[in-house]
Amino acid sequence: MAAHNAPTRIAMLIYPRFTTLDLIGPQQVLSVLPNTVVHLVAKTRDPVTTDSHVTIVPDRDFADCEPEYDVVFIPGGHGTSVMVQDDETLDFVRTVAGKARYLSSVCTGSLILAAAGLLEGYRAASHWAFREFLSAYGAIPDDRRVVMDRNRMTGGGVTAGLDFALQLAAVLTDETFARTLQLVLEYDPAPPFDCGTPERADQATLEAAVTRLAGGVSAMRRVAAEHAAMR
Amino acid sequence: MAAHNAPTRIAMLIYPRFTTLDLIGPQQVLSVLPNTVVHLVAKTRDPVTTDSHVTIVPDRDFADCEPEYDVVFIPGGHGTSVMVQDDETLDFVRTVAGKARYLSSVCTGSLILAAAGLLEGYRAASHWAFREFLSAYGAIPDDRRVVMDRNRMTGGGVTAGLDFALQLAAVLTDETFARTLQLVLEYDPAPPFDCGTPERADQATLEAAVTRLAGGVSAMRRVAAEHAAMR
Repeated sequence: MAAHNAPTRIAMLIYPRFTTLDLIGPQQVLSVLPNTVVHLVAKTRDPVTTDSHVTIVPDRDFADCEPEYDVVFIPGGHGTSVMVQDDETLDFVRTVAGKARYLSSVCTGSLILAAAGLLEGYRAASHWAFREFLSAYGAIPDDRRVVMDRNRMTGGGVTAGLDFALQLAAVLTDETFARTLQLVLEYDPAPPFDCGTPERADQATLEAAVTRLAGGVSAMRRVAAEHAAMR
Repeated sequence: MAAHNAPTRIAMLIYPRFTTLDLIGPQQVLSVLPNTVVHLVAKTRDPVTTDSHVTIVPDRDFADCEPEYDVVFIPGGHGTSVMVQDDETLDFVRTVAGKARYLSSVCTGSLILAAAGLLEGYRAASHWAFREFLSAYGAIPDDRRVVMDRNRMTGGGVTAGLDFALQLAAVLTDETFARTLQLVLEYDPAPPFDCGTPERADQATLEAAVTRLAGGVSAMRRVAAEHAAMR
């Protein structure tokens, strides 16, 4: 046992047009773990604008962040299809990932982990409309809300970040603490409708959602196909 | 019917040590409503640090925001007990509230609405550990997750913001659109534990949560008691 109890260090990647809630659901949970440091890490120290138009100031940039993190987390969002082609970001992710105990993501963040070559042969979750593109990077799409495959922990679309983060909190601390956080966050959800997955949604809702996501899906489909052709 | 379809304007108050997820759950939903403008409004343009240590840049300050908003929203958090005594903030809230169609909050944000005198005789939700203090300001504590009393719409603790926001989205647009958003956000929650309210939690979890929240609760109790004594 170490004489000093070193803090758990968590790096959460942020990048232009990530989905705010993908980050903040988990960040709200992880930020209160005991003896834990959470850094929002971006390519530069410039404020980052999310895809819901919130401007967030990074804590660290790629150059000045800690040499090692215990956990690396990547949110998804409209910016994903750019990030999966961004060599500087993928290099950074590979570098911090090499020293991390856990690699994690929510929503289409798993596509960035996959594009960095870190989900080859791993089962992974993603947003339902984007999950299939994991295959182009050698990952195995899994439709569960939270998927743990060895030390890779990935969540499904956006709101899955809460379920993901409470499970990660239990792994990093213990179930007692994670239960306490669930009560502190009053997480006893009561969705107004029963349509949170394609399987549960009625046809009209599904079609409207598919239409709404069409631009992002076709951008990602093109990028994934190009990548698959080069493999 | 107006010749031009004026956008729906939503003001979301931000202040030091608000709870990030209180804001971002609803903001993620409201930011994609059609023909809608969402502003994060703070006392000044200085970046605001939340109680989970995220630094967010406001879109507007009290002086330069729109003259009228259709919806006013207030998140809760550790900073609530300061804000309920902050005359500049309460004056601002009263001013924008006077022209708004809906006044709304999540978590202890309802205490700020109440302290501004805007929930007198209204039923309101709040975080379970802070709900009782609504009475000191003439509001009626209600333990439902989302409470709509006339044009006041209040959510319970932190994660209730998602349930609140989808209901508000249905009011501001229609149920079809709100259902589509629920599917886009993949909101089919799967909490890892069954302990999201005091009633559902086991005794050990409840005691741990009460201990964790004790500092904030006693600060708010003192402030509410002083206010009640002056009424």
